[in-house]
Amino acid sequence: MKTDIQDLINTIKTQANEARKAILTMTTLAGSGHPGGSMSSIDLLLCVYNTIKHNPAQPQMPDRDRVIISNGHISPAVFSALGLLGYFDLDEAIAQFRLTGSIFEGHTERRVPGVEWSSGNLGQGLSAGTGFALASRINKIPYNVYVFMGDGEQQKGQISEARRFAVKYCLNNIIAIIDYNQLQISGSIHNVMPQNIRKNWESDGWKVMEVDGHNIPLILTALDNARAFQQPTMILAHTVMGKGVTFMENNAQYHGSALSEAQLENALKELGTENELKKYRKLRSEFKPEQNPQISFAFEPDFTIGKPVRYETDSDCRSAWGKTIADLAKVNANAKTPIVVLDCDLATSVKTEEFAQVSPQNFFQCGIMEQHTCVMGGALSICGIQTFWSDFGVFGIAEVYNNQRLNDINQTNLKTVVTHTGIDVGADGKTHQCIDYISLTRNLFGFKLIFPADANQTDRIIRWLINKPGNYLVTMGRSKLPVLKKLDGTLQYDVDYNFIYGEADILRDGNDGSMWVCGTPVAKAIKAVDTLREEGIFLELLYVSSPLHLDLTQVKSSAGKGIIFSVEDHSVNGGLGTSIADALAVNSLGVKLVKIGVTQYPMSGEANELYHWAGLDTTSLIATVKKYLA
Amino acid sequence: MKTDIQDLINTIKTQANEARKAILTMTTLAGSGHPGGSMSSIDLLLCVYNTIKHNPAQPQMPDRDRVIISNGHISPAVFSALGLLGYFDLDEAIAQFRLTGSIFEGHTERRVPGVEWSSGNLGQGLSAGTGFALASRINKIPYNVYVFMGDGEQQKGQISEARRFAVKYCLNNIIAIIDYNQLQISGSIHNVMPQNIRKNWESDGWKVMEVDGHNIPLILTALDNARAFQQPTMILAHTVMGKGVTFMENNAQYHGSALSEAQLENALKELGTENELKKYRKLRSEFKPEQNPQISFAFEPDFTIGKPVRYETDSDCRSAWGKTIADLAKVNANAKTPIVVLDCDLATSVKTEEFAQVSPQNFFQCGIMEQHTCVMGGALSICGIQTFWSDFGVFGIAEVYNNQRLNDINQTNLKTVVTHTGIDVGADGKTHQCIDYISLTRNLFGFKLIFPADANQTDRIIRWLINKPGNYLVTMGRSKLPVLKKLDGTLQYDVDYNFIYGEADILRDGNDGSMWVCGTPVAKAIKAVDTLREEGIFLELLYVSSPLHLDLTQVKSSAGKGIIFSVEDHSVNGGLGTSIADALAVNSLGVKLVKIGVTQYPMSGEANELYHWAGLDTTSLIATVKKYLA
Repeated sequence: MKTDIQDLINTIKTQANEARKAILTMTTLAGSGHPGGSMSSIDLLLCVYNTIKHNPAQPQMPDRDRVIISNGHISPAVFSALGLLGYFDLDEAIAQFRLTGSIFEGHTERRVPGVEWSSGNLGQGLSAGTGFALASRINKIPYNVYVFMGDGEQQKGQISEARRFAVKYCLNNIIAIIDYNQLQISGSIHNVMPQNIRKNWESDGWKVMEVDGHNIPLILTALDNARAFQQPTMILAHTVMGKGVTFMENNAQYHGSALSEAQLENALKELGTENELKKYRKLRSEFKPEQNPQISFAFEPDFTIGKPVRYETDSDCRSAWGKTIADLAKVNANAKTPIVVLDCDLATSVKTEEFAQVSPQNFFQCGIMEQHTCVMGGALSICGIQTFWSDFGVFGIAEVYNNQRLNDINQTNLKTVVTHTGIDVGADGKTHQCIDYISLTRNLFGFKLIFPADANQTDRIIRWLINKPGNYLVTMGRSKLPVLKKLDGTLQYDVDYNFIYGEADILRDGNDGSMWVCGTPVAKAIKAVDTLREEGIFLELLYVSSPLHLDLTQVKSSAGKGIIFSVEDHSVNGGLGTSIADALAVNSLGVKLVKIGVTQYPMSGEANELYHWAGLDTTSLIATVKKYLA
Repeated sequence: MKTDIQDLINTIKTQANEARKAILTMTTLAGSGHPGGSMSSIDLLLCVYNTIKHNPAQPQMPDRDRVIISNGHISPAVFSALGLLGYFDLDEAIAQFRLTGSIFEGHTERRVPGVEWSSGNLGQGLSAGTGFALASRINKIPYNVYVFMGDGEQQKGQISEARRFAVKYCLNNIIAIIDYNQLQISGSIHNVMPQNIRKNWESDGWKVMEVDGHNIPLILTALDNARAFQQPTMILAHTVMGKGVTFMENNAQYHGSALSEAQLENALKELGTENELKKYRKLRSEFKPEQNPQISFAFEPDFTIGKPVRYETDSDCRSAWGKTIADLAKVNANAKTPIVVLDCDLATSVKTEEFAQVSPQNFFQCGIMEQHTCVMGGALSICGIQTFWSDFGVFGIAEVYNNQRLNDINQTNLKTVVTHTGIDVGADGKTHQCIDYISLTRNLFGFKLIFPADANQTDRIIRWLINKPGNYLVTMGRSKLPVLKKLDGTLQYDVDYNFIYGEADILRDGNDGSMWVCGTPVAKAIKAVDTLREEGIFLELLYVSSPLHLDLTQVKSSAGKGIIFSVEDHSVNGGLGTSIADALAVNSLGVKLVKIGVTQYPMSGEANELYHWAGLDTTSLIATVKKYLA
């Protein structure tokens, strides 16, 4: 036994020297990168990777332990460790580091075998880690989760949210490891922003251990102890920035800058290893980007979609959402894929209480910690769990914009269902009136956005969505809306309606112009168009449930009618109107566009009064149309 | 003395009863609002407002103590207290609460006399409070700052950032008061998200006191003690939600819902006060929105703009920014308005180190705490301080989008100067490549965005900006760029150039089409246009430094040339191209628009290689133009 441990220690020590060579070589070769923290964390990384349950030949083995890198800039260390462990050819990582088209990017990337989570924005990794840790419980697959973090990073507030969540849900399978080299870009962490990291973690109920982060036997013991504790545990590892090369040690300059070739030569001499820069430069020059990624992000849920519910009287979409997700949980109680709903202290308003009753084990109350919840949910969603997070619009997209972007970069499958968008929110006022959901989501290349028109369409869309991979933002208002009816009085979205993403629904025909409406103003728009029709003005009316992805054929057809009115409970800067403008201009369609929506920060008030204020009520819509057509 | 205190206690008790009546009446009248937390915090609010240095007749008195409400939903309590203290007619606040067009909105609003900071998004008030507290030191005007917070709100991570900042800068003039009623929307805070609030604050170095939040003499003593401590102090005030009305007490239901009229009748009976709902309903029906706000947000700095610097060789805009702001600090060393620069551990990259040397007392190192810094800076900027915050694009706008929105709602004067935008960032990869700065800022109605074309224009723009009120985002890339020259070889932006916001600069004339370029690709665009010119294709080339606010005359003129190419190191969804498309469609200008920019998440790589990948290098630009014009 003792010999085994000594062998392991020797192995790690040998790997550590190889890794340090790799770290310095790849950063010098790339001419940039972060060698300092890579050198201080490499011993810790190797101790973890050498003692976890994993299989480099099978990087997506379901019961593997997960290693999350929150401080993604230590990618040189991570790639070195993974290469040495056999996840890929280390030579390739060294040669291709930060090269255009390579998977070995400046910050850790999920496309690299062995990397679980793309990072780069600091302070978010622990949230992701709690998602993986919680997924272990939900999926009933036991494994541990290790989260590597920087010490400067501890300044970020989101970490405290993640800590609380881990303790609330007793995620005792999580171990955080802080590379405590006490330096950040601007110098000593104690000067930049004094902080008692140990007390911070303890105040949130974590077990904290301290260890010399370069003493392999002590690190291995600490990891053993941490795995044994029945408490989320943080290892504060005292390390030395640039460890291993005298002139780099404790020098903040090397946080984010590579060695020159001359410095590299000296450094490698000190490490007692050969300088192979030339060999790697040649490999680098020969690099061709891979066409076939080794890692599959596929997610193919196969849920029963249940029986569509028919709404015949006024209803709010959020209640329909709540009923549908509860029904889907019921009819899929025995499905192999779990359905999870996350809440941030708003279940009564976003109507997920029924789901919580039907499926209490899969309902997670995350408190007023939206940034954490967004990332944690993103991580859950790539663990084979169909994950819904329901919140107000302002909290589900505006407060967490960058967290959603990181999710999207990670190709997660999070379904964010937000209610209370728009001035329809009413008296809560401008901080709570989300009027930028389209404009924000427009930047997230992988996202789709859906705004159901009424309770019937909400029901159909949620049932459609339950089997979809990828990131979606589903948006709703607050108020009760009429169920939409055709001119003949039948339901616009009856039980046989099939939702098609990207297709607008023609609610009324007409050739005097076209009105495109998205969201809560739809009933008012119908009334306006029907009234105008009685006065001899025949407008086409389209409901746009997918304002980010318009159907070009429909745009062209409407453009042929001479004028398009866009109507939305959203800022006129960046919403549906902007999607239409883009489509028109790119396709040289010179039709007049009249954008009707919110043109300044709104205010408190009764929703209907605010609609009048914004020109979105029926009377105002009629007046605007007449201004152009009468 | 003893009698004085007893008088004060009696006054507060009488006010508290009046205030409770007002709280319940205004929420019932509005049919919504948050009576529960208002009732639990009103005794604390009145103790503070009755003992601070202030003058209700002069709400903007420079040396007044500041009271910040972080949990803005207790607006009924705040309006009641301020009304009783004489800031305005309480009857108006009761009658107009949450009414369209009234200043008495659902969440506290800075337009209300006595309210220092608009809030609604939780977790941000302490950051604002530290800004006001720091401004006291910078402006050498002694006052105290009181920050009211909720207990559920303590779950938000940003609060920990604000705590650390306060301790680092010894903001001993700040007192936080937590309304510890132990209930949030979903029930007990201990069930929703277990948390040791006291330990959290102590772990960051705050003094913590606990007090019965309904015992007026004890609260007054606690406040006296807190004012005396030479340490940031938090008072954890044990309170009862709904305090004063038996059926409301400790009932989470009343967090966010108003009493019915019958319940109000009973509640007012218990309080021993008259029910005047009828009177207020009449006043409400008679309300007409005010035209003249009582509070002025004017900010009129009067700096010397110094001597423009002439750059003749390649330079990065960020170095020019750093030199200019350092120069402005030098030449304005004796100005009555301070110039402050905030940093988040990136001074070496964003080039504010020289400013830090020139003006060390006005340079604040805020650590990796961008959300805090954004709001703190917003608060500083409304205290007569010209406040610059310099950071990377991703951190200065994408990570803090909602904080900037709250700043904008507060009509702050923050100048956010971000570098490292676009794929020009290079090898740091997609998490660090900010390609949504235009699209995000488009949603902020009060913001202006400026992207200088080269070092010369940067110098001129920063000198122009130094005297501007309002919120600005100034964006730059990372790389060195050629200084722009006219066809005759003279500088495009020489020392006599005057920047005009909203005006594009015509870099080249031509009638075969028009190219509009924003940001770092400008030199490549010039080269492309000059090359095309040699081949007989004469393109007009415009540099757009203000992509959010285009000059319609210029758009029309370019539209007349048959085709417009937009070129930007930004997502094609929502950037300059979108601004042009909007202008075209709204004005029925049916010209072809070709949007050239980033169409998916980018990657690590050398900037020039990424430009080629995105079709933004000279060769690609030429090829794209020829595809349409040759």
